[in-house]
Amino acid sequence: MDRLLRLANTSQSKWYQWMLRHFHYLHQHPELSFQESNTIHYISTILEKNLGLKSNFYEVNGEIFGQTVSSQAITVSFGQGEKTVIFTADFDALPIEEACSHRYRSKSTDKMHACGHDMHTSILLGIAWWLKQNEDLLTCRVVLLFRPAEELNGTAFLIKSEKLLDYLGKDAVCFGLHVYPELPPGKISTCAGLINYSAEFLKIEVKGKGGHTARPEHDFSPLTTMGQILSQLPLVITQEVPEAVIAFGQVHSGSKGNIIPEFAWCEGTLRTPDFQFHEKARTAMHQYVRSLENDFVKLELKNSGVPALPPVINDATLVEASKSISEHFPWIEVQHTESSRGADDISWFSELGYPLHFFRLGTKPEHQQQIFDLHSPHFEADPRALLTGVYFQLFQLIKYIEKDM
Amino acid sequence: MDRLLRLANTSQSKWYQWMLRHFHYLHQHPELSFQESNTIHYISTILEKNLGLKSNFYEVNGEIFGQTVSSQAITVSFGQGEKTVIFTADFDALPIEEACSHRYRSKSTDKMHACGHDMHTSILLGIAWWLKQNEDLLTCRVVLLFRPAEELNGTAFLIKSEKLLDYLGKDAVCFGLHVYPELPPGKISTCAGLINYSAEFLKIEVKGKGGHTARPEHDFSPLTTMGQILSQLPLVITQEVPEAVIAFGQVHSGSKGNIIPEFAWCEGTLRTPDFQFHEKARTAMHQYVRSLENDFVKLELKNSGVPALPPVINDATLVEASKSISEHFPWIEVQHTESSRGADDISWFSELGYPLHFFRLGTKPEHQQQIFDLHSPHFEADPRALLTGVYFQLFQLIKYIEKDM
Repeated sequence: MDRLLRLANTSQSKWYQWMLRHFHYLHQHPELSFQESNTIHYISTILEKNLGLKSNFYEVNGEIFGQTVSSQAITVSFGQGEKTVIFTADFDALPIEEACSHRYRSKSTDKMHACGHDMHTSILLGIAWWLKQNEDLLTCRVVLLFRPAEELNGTAFLIKSEKLLDYLGKDAVCFGLHVYPELPPGKISTCAGLINYSAEFLKIEVKGKGGHTARPEHDFSPLTTMGQILSQLPLVITQEVPEAVIAFGQVHSGSKGNIIPEFAWCEGTLRTPDFQFHEKARTAMHQYVRSLENDFVKLELKNSGVPALPPVINDATLVEASKSISEHFPWIEVQHTESSRGADDISWFSELGYPLHFFRLGTKPEHQQQIFDLHSPHFEADPRALLTGVYFQLFQLIKYIEKDM
Repeated sequence: MDRLLRLANTSQSKWYQWMLRHFHYLHQHPELSFQESNTIHYISTILEKNLGLKSNFYEVNGEIFGQTVSSQAITVSFGQGEKTVIFTADFDALPIEEACSHRYRSKSTDKMHACGHDMHTSILLGIAWWLKQNEDLLTCRVVLLFRPAEELNGTAFLIKSEKLLDYLGKDAVCFGLHVYPELPPGKISTCAGLINYSAEFLKIEVKGKGGHTARPEHDFSPLTTMGQILSQLPLVITQEVPEAVIAFGQVHSGSKGNIIPEFAWCEGTLRTPDFQFHEKARTAMHQYVRSLENDFVKLELKNSGVPALPPVINDATLVEASKSISEHFPWIEVQHTESSRGADDISWFSELGYPLHFFRLGTKPEHQQQIFDLHSPHFEADPRALLTGVYFQLFQLIKYIEKDM
């Protein structure tokens, strides 16, 4: 702990500037899930050229709603030992046009790091920076795992890699974090047990009878049915399964105002605390969707082909041990949080049986009065949270090494 | 009338084959409203090279929902006289992928003549073919007017051309037709007075608060509101204004299943028998749209900038005179029809004060059991209706010349 404390008083500024540079670069160059080639190149170049580390690559291949997808995960490791500590971060961005005006805003007009994965990755790079200089301190192995395509459940495909699972080993604990727009930098929130819901993508297709908007009574418009789905399905399902939350993200249909189209589709998410509620919600959805059908209008609940994300379950011991950070770093405060319906594919690691601590890192910028949610085009992460992130993660590592948990 | 009757017994087949060739070509090469450059070139080439006629061009320029649009109309004329008979046809197609499998199906994967304008134009070319050989018979002037962009109310812009209005003159009558999928070739239906409704394009924009689909309660999704609009607005308006019919043609919002978008829009049509009902319906729409607003969700009923299409009003004398066609051509039968909510921008000619006869030309193919509406990707016009079209139009011309009306 001494070295970490000493760092806080000496070269913290250099460390921060180093992470900030990567954070700005990543924020300016967002790439969508399964299209992260430049980001992968950037991360591995930093690891290899800047830090002299050897990167390992793991293929991530799959199929989502019938489309083939692929990307790569990257690992580097430090130290030796029977036990392994995994720190992991995701690095994909979202199809959003950024509405922020800060100097490092996205250079893309239709992609944005609106979920903070740029900060997650920059913090993980910051951990690599520190470990590179303090490897002698380690009595266990530390693996840093950079994951692609979190926004499309990429880890569901990644953990099919036996090569990766062998590499991580069985005796490992896992740490990860997520930026959190409701708390300022310096604040962290977490809880034992369920911290993030299970989630899966929904896609509903409606096939109707197209024709002329002059005769909606002859032509069974998929748009009317789609309207019922968008406005009613979330309510109907929550009424039947109060634990389930459905919300839609997109809808598309038609090409012209006076043509009733044949086809409409929408996509959204179903979130529940647990798989068992997914089953209930799916049954309720099937019933509702069937109730909207008639001789001319047919509906299909598409199967994405990807298993639903498991819930994120935090290990109580790891959570408890982290709370004493304020004793050493009084500017960091850990609060209790309720579980969130936001999902994260880090959950596959708790699902695999690794003790996990996934916490929320406050990133609300002082200058924003209003809270802008993750996935909002106005979302902005205060860069000072980079420091909270690295200190909190390394604090947990040192506690683990010192067997103080 | 004799010459027309004689033709029916002699070179009808040659005439038909000539029209059929153009019908096939136009059907295979559809072009969207205000993008009809090839079609314009094709029509004027036929008129000039095949028939030795001189085409006149009229610019059609306007702005729709803020977008600048332009195209051209074409006229040719025959004969001399104080009175003018106008035959007119439209030639634009629709953004639909054709689902028919006949040998002359659209060569485009996303455009289709699903509203029969290819047949309207081929019939008008057929009229030119006949007039070219029978010009000596004319005691009045006959103008053939080929109109672009009917599907986007192009004639609203066309009639701003003083050059065209001067050319047509004040003492004119106007004839036009529309393919009709509910009757077979040989059958025509029409009525005096209101035959087609007034119509206008609607565009509704919803601005909400975007964010994460995990927290629909924090983020005010425009999709929920859009769902209400799609499923409820048509019913609410018809309840308040029973004469009004609203149907939607397209809706678009969002880019990913787990991002609540900021913005959604839909487009449709409002149709009523008369402008006065439009005002009532618009007031009711404004009220309903306002009722869906809250602190975070704002709606806008966009103004297209194009005046609503007037209703098509048929001249009772012209309609009555046409009914005796069966006495001369027993294979053509005229039926009564109720007014339709389908609109047509030929209505600008009745609005301008020209006596007008706009009738429905049966085109249902024998091989289709089911009726496929206009604007359906399955819509198909039986080519034999080309003959019904030219005979009926020329019959009306001869009746007009013979002052038999």
